[in-house]
Amino acid sequence: MEALDYHAEERRKAEFDVEEMKIVWAGSRQAYEISDRVARLVASDPVFRKDNRTMLSRKDLFKDTLRKAAHAWKRIIELRLSGLFFSCGMFIPAIKGQGNEEQQQKWLPMAYKMQIIGCYAQTELGHGSNVQGLETTATFDPETDEFVIHSPTLTSSKWWPGGLGKVSTHALVYARLITDGQDHGVHGFIVQLRSLDDHLPLPGITVGDIGMKFGSGAYNSMDNGVLRFDHVRIPRDQMLMGVSQVTREGKFMQSDVPRQLVYGTMVYVRQKIVADASCALSRAVCIATRYSAVRRQFGSHNGGPETQVIDYKTQQSRLFPLLASAYAFRFVGEWLKWLYTDVTRRLEANDFSTLPEVHACTAGLKSVTTSATADAIEECRKLCGGHGYLSSSGLPELFAVYVPACTYEGDNVVLLLQVSRFLMKTVSQLGSGKKPVGTIAYMGRSEHLLQCRCEVERAEDWLKPNVILEAFEARAARMSVTCAKNLNNFPNQEEGFAQLATDLAEAAVAHVQLIIVSKFIEKLHQDIPGKGVKRQLEILFNVYALSLLHKHLGDFVASGCITPKQGALANEQLRLLYSQVRPNAIALVDAFNYTDHYLGSVLGRYDGNVYPKLYEEAWKDPLNETVVPDGYHDYIRPILKQHIRVARL
Amino acid sequence: MEALDYHAEERRKAEFDVEEMKIVWAGSRQAYEISDRVARLVASDPVFRKDNRTMLSRKDLFKDTLRKAAHAWKRIIELRLSGLFFSCGMFIPAIKGQGNEEQQQKWLPMAYKMQIIGCYAQTELGHGSNVQGLETTATFDPETDEFVIHSPTLTSSKWWPGGLGKVSTHALVYARLITDGQDHGVHGFIVQLRSLDDHLPLPGITVGDIGMKFGSGAYNSMDNGVLRFDHVRIPRDQMLMGVSQVTREGKFMQSDVPRQLVYGTMVYVRQKIVADASCALSRAVCIATRYSAVRRQFGSHNGGPETQVIDYKTQQSRLFPLLASAYAFRFVGEWLKWLYTDVTRRLEANDFSTLPEVHACTAGLKSVTTSATADAIEECRKLCGGHGYLSSSGLPELFAVYVPACTYEGDNVVLLLQVSRFLMKTVSQLGSGKKPVGTIAYMGRSEHLLQCRCEVERAEDWLKPNVILEAFEARAARMSVTCAKNLNNFPNQEEGFAQLATDLAEAAVAHVQLIIVSKFIEKLHQDIPGKGVKRQLEILFNVYALSLLHKHLGDFVASGCITPKQGALANEQLRLLYSQVRPNAIALVDAFNYTDHYLGSVLGRYDGNVYPKLYEEAWKDPLNETVVPDGYHDYIRPILKQHIRVARL
Repeated sequence: MEALDYHAEERRKAEFDVEEMKIVWAGSRQAYEISDRVARLVASDPVFRKDNRTMLSRKDLFKDTLRKAAHAWKRIIELRLSGLFFSCGMFIPAIKGQGNEEQQQKWLPMAYKMQIIGCYAQTELGHGSNVQGLETTATFDPETDEFVIHSPTLTSSKWWPGGLGKVSTHALVYARLITDGQDHGVHGFIVQLRSLDDHLPLPGITVGDIGMKFGSGAYNSMDNGVLRFDHVRIPRDQMLMGVSQVTREGKFMQSDVPRQLVYGTMVYVRQKIVADASCALSRAVCIATRYSAVRRQFGSHNGGPETQVIDYKTQQSRLFPLLASAYAFRFVGEWLKWLYTDVTRRLEANDFSTLPEVHACTAGLKSVTTSATADAIEECRKLCGGHGYLSSSGLPELFAVYVPACTYEGDNVVLLLQVSRFLMKTVSQLGSGKKPVGTIAYMGRSEHLLQCRCEVERAEDWLKPNVILEAFEARAARMSVTCAKNLNNFPNQEEGFAQLATDLAEAAVAHVQLIIVSKFIEKLHQDIPGKGVKRQLEILFNVYALSLLHKHLGDFVASGCITPKQGALANEQLRLLYSQVRPNAIALVDAFNYTDHYLGSVLGRYDGNVYPKLYEEAWKDPLNETVVPDGYHDYIRPILKQHIRVARL
Repeated sequence: MEALDYHAEERRKAEFDVEEMKIVWAGSRQAYEISDRVARLVASDPVFRKDNRTMLSRKDLFKDTLRKAAHAWKRIIELRLSGLFFSCGMFIPAIKGQGNEEQQQKWLPMAYKMQIIGCYAQTELGHGSNVQGLETTATFDPETDEFVIHSPTLTSSKWWPGGLGKVSTHALVYARLITDGQDHGVHGFIVQLRSLDDHLPLPGITVGDIGMKFGSGAYNSMDNGVLRFDHVRIPRDQMLMGVSQVTREGKFMQSDVPRQLVYGTMVYVRQKIVADASCALSRAVCIATRYSAVRRQFGSHNGGPETQVIDYKTQQSRLFPLLASAYAFRFVGEWLKWLYTDVTRRLEANDFSTLPEVHACTAGLKSVTTSATADAIEECRKLCGGHGYLSSSGLPELFAVYVPACTYEGDNVVLLLQVSRFLMKTVSQLGSGKKPVGTIAYMGRSEHLLQCRCEVERAEDWLKPNVILEAFEARAARMSVTCAKNLNNFPNQEEGFAQLATDLAEAAVAHVQLIIVSKFIEKLHQDIPGKGVKRQLEILFNVYALSLLHKHLGDFVASGCITPKQGALANEQLRLLYSQVRPNAIALVDAFNYTDHYLGSVLGRYDGNVYPKLYEEAWKDPLNETVVPDGYHDYIRPILKQHIRVARL
């Protein structure tokens, strides 16, 4: 019997080779094969079923997660895969990055084998973004050769670390190092929290879960925790000593290892976050695109079927730019991966020259891609109409799981301001002969960019990558230069930065969007095999760039490079592009190669068999276990009956 | 002992009379006193505590809601308040609006006294926006004088009606009326679903809950339901016969009551939705504003306290426009209430002249205010940093409860397209001598508006309401006229509407934002007593209008009325306005007069005592009932121990 496929006709419409596009999306044939294999293994394993998650109480949800994690660990051993569960992602990288040789040899094997479970305890109740403001103290006691870890205030309670509340045996605690009454700023310390025998908290340690969070599943399956120390003692060698040391005598020593090395970890983490953004965004887009082809509403002629909502321009103009963004973020994420290896190599060779540029670019990309993705997931939910509000659509949970990315590892607004500081510095050095490099190289041509006029005369002129690139460069350069000029109107630099913060953040966004656009163009210059694949990417590139241009038209026009008339032509071209995306839309989301299990969405099912499955799902709700609801006799019947009695009196 | 108030200093800074502003917000002194009394009654009643909602399983959550509803009903009787619980809001208005005299006399008293509980069963699995496409049938059987209600397909299952799944005894079912083989389109029928004796579904009826929805509490406390009919018979007089009738012989008759009457109900419902938008938005803004004054991050000088985040321009430029929007929506909502009484009076006098304009204006306001509010709640959550992600912040649930407003009672995009059709019609009739009235009157001056140039030369020129009003009028008029021109480039009107849908929707938004701006100006022209109150409203008006101008700068510049340079001046003025809002921010949210119970947010507490309460809340999570989590022995310990054994081999 042939498998049911409501999307079969849509798939036949595709004008390109989907299998080749899958490889482009995955990055390489090998990456494609591995991810495909793992996804299918997970999907076929009944332990990993997730359809009941949203109905569980907090305790049951958490226990269910423990069960899955333990099973995953077992499977990893069996399949000889590498990977880490339970342990929060940052514990091991931090020991690697900040521990010395000896510490790495002692702690890493235990962490890898899960003889200990570690979490990363940085954020406090009162301090997130401002790490230098953390209040927890680690005071060296030379008499016993120990540090005394202490929480001096309520706001110094560690708060948020994932895995801390219930699971972790150890924590990497960030605390102010104090030796001989002197404060040396924030450093990392490995602290055991719970007994390895009975899991009870050790003396002086108060630890627990911080309570419910957004969504019904999402991060509620994790034990984000709270932690207080009451003079907890740890041996001196549990301070991470890769970068700074405290000697037996209590002398604080900055090591000669340059502090810039920590940027390596930061670049690593942020490139991972950008990659995650393209994953989350593409999941949401896949669901919304497939359901938009299933759902019909209005437009029936002579009793024929109604119009698929994906055929409406209003749907296309909201959905297709997000589809294009998913590809754009994927490619810029791929490039970031390369950038990480490049910067690692340079750091090892003591070449710190690219660091400021790399830092600005990764911070900016983290901010722009996560903000856009969070908004996009919610937009995809709305694009599914009312049914997007059902948990079985998968979108509410995807949103609730995703949004913290806008806040963790650097609040998105704070990051943009960091980027803008780098931009202002670059502008101020333009006359100095120091040539801007990498993603900021265009600033070297700012004299030209400040005067150039876009030459678009007809809508199709907007299809040329060079025209688009110059418009984005001109916009970014002019916004930065304008900010730099306006900063001079203030009595001092800091006051200027404070007053113009919003303009500066907008200039940073313009710079980052330019990076994404230019990396997409670089991708198009690569050799891309497969029938029609390159053509699709060109279309998606144009959709991405022109939809941004439309959204930020004020920026582009204000900077003088393009005229309102040219903006209107871009908009016209965009409409034509949507018509070109339309027949390929389903195939373009098929290219993500997501299993139904991974998507976790009835609306996004590969076979499009949405309505019967929605109906089937509904009956699984615990409320449907009984026909008459629990509470009827206590609360509904008395009201109905009381008044019937009253009425009959 | 004096009550703790961390915001005391902030409150002292206020430059206006907060008590008077409370009355402005409430609409009148009487409205203020009533809402204040009810809020305090609810807040002081232990049955209504809601802090545990997010931790309950679906079944417990639902039962808890039943308990509260029953208690609320009892209190309503005791306090002689009027109000309706359980019953979905539309059941009664629909019988009022579409039932005949007799039907109203029979059903309304039972519904008011809750001898029956009714829901509004319109939406189906396959049809939401397109009501005319509903599939459920009501076929008249002249032999028995009954209608046969039937669900012919899976997609015809009723889906979403609130209160349907578990509670309702009756439903107002919308179905296609069929007499003698002829389809007369969709009409309303009262159908009993469950026995009044034992609450069991009646024969032929399949009914249940549709499952989990967004959030952990939110609409999961409601039993949105699914309903199928298998040839269910109801007496003929249970078709709502106010507008159309079916006679004993099975003859279908359109009544002479004009169909436009149903618009009255629609205006009523939509003005209610706009009022709700200002409530939801102001709640979120209140929480974010108060916490922004509590939270400090960075900027400590010489060991002094760090800067309150509300002092950062990036925070202000995101938060204060939302604060201003809350007031703007409140005032336009107030005006809509007046519009409803006006249109009701006209309808009773058979004056239908204002209906198209009223319909466009209410549809547009519903769309624009709910979309803006949904986005704003999430923005407020982000403005609270990481802690906004905690359920105890109140913001995740507020968001999850609110977002359906973008979809129900008319999908927001569909509504904008309705508005744009009205705009296009208005433009096309401009030469005909038919003078546009009410909110569309400005189109009568479109010749002037198409050519006018804004005269702003200095930033402070942007403070003049007339300058702002003209800029908004010029933008709206030019966008509509441009769309109308572009429509002519298409072979036919319908093709043009389809292709230009996105531009049309944007023109509709411009029109609606103009309405909100102009109603705010009208409010400023009213007599507003109280020291400094009017001044604050003027500032908020300017913030609202200029932040919109900044956001949509491309529209304004493209339409030629204002130059990029004037746009930059508006932005400069906006920054100065933020500084004027700053000292009044806490007092401006205090003026909403929300109890801590109503806000349901630790971050938004009136007294600002945030951190100790967050800490206290955390320990209430069920996960903290035991120190060692459930699941430790099964899933954590084996992993930790297994590897210690392996390592020792």
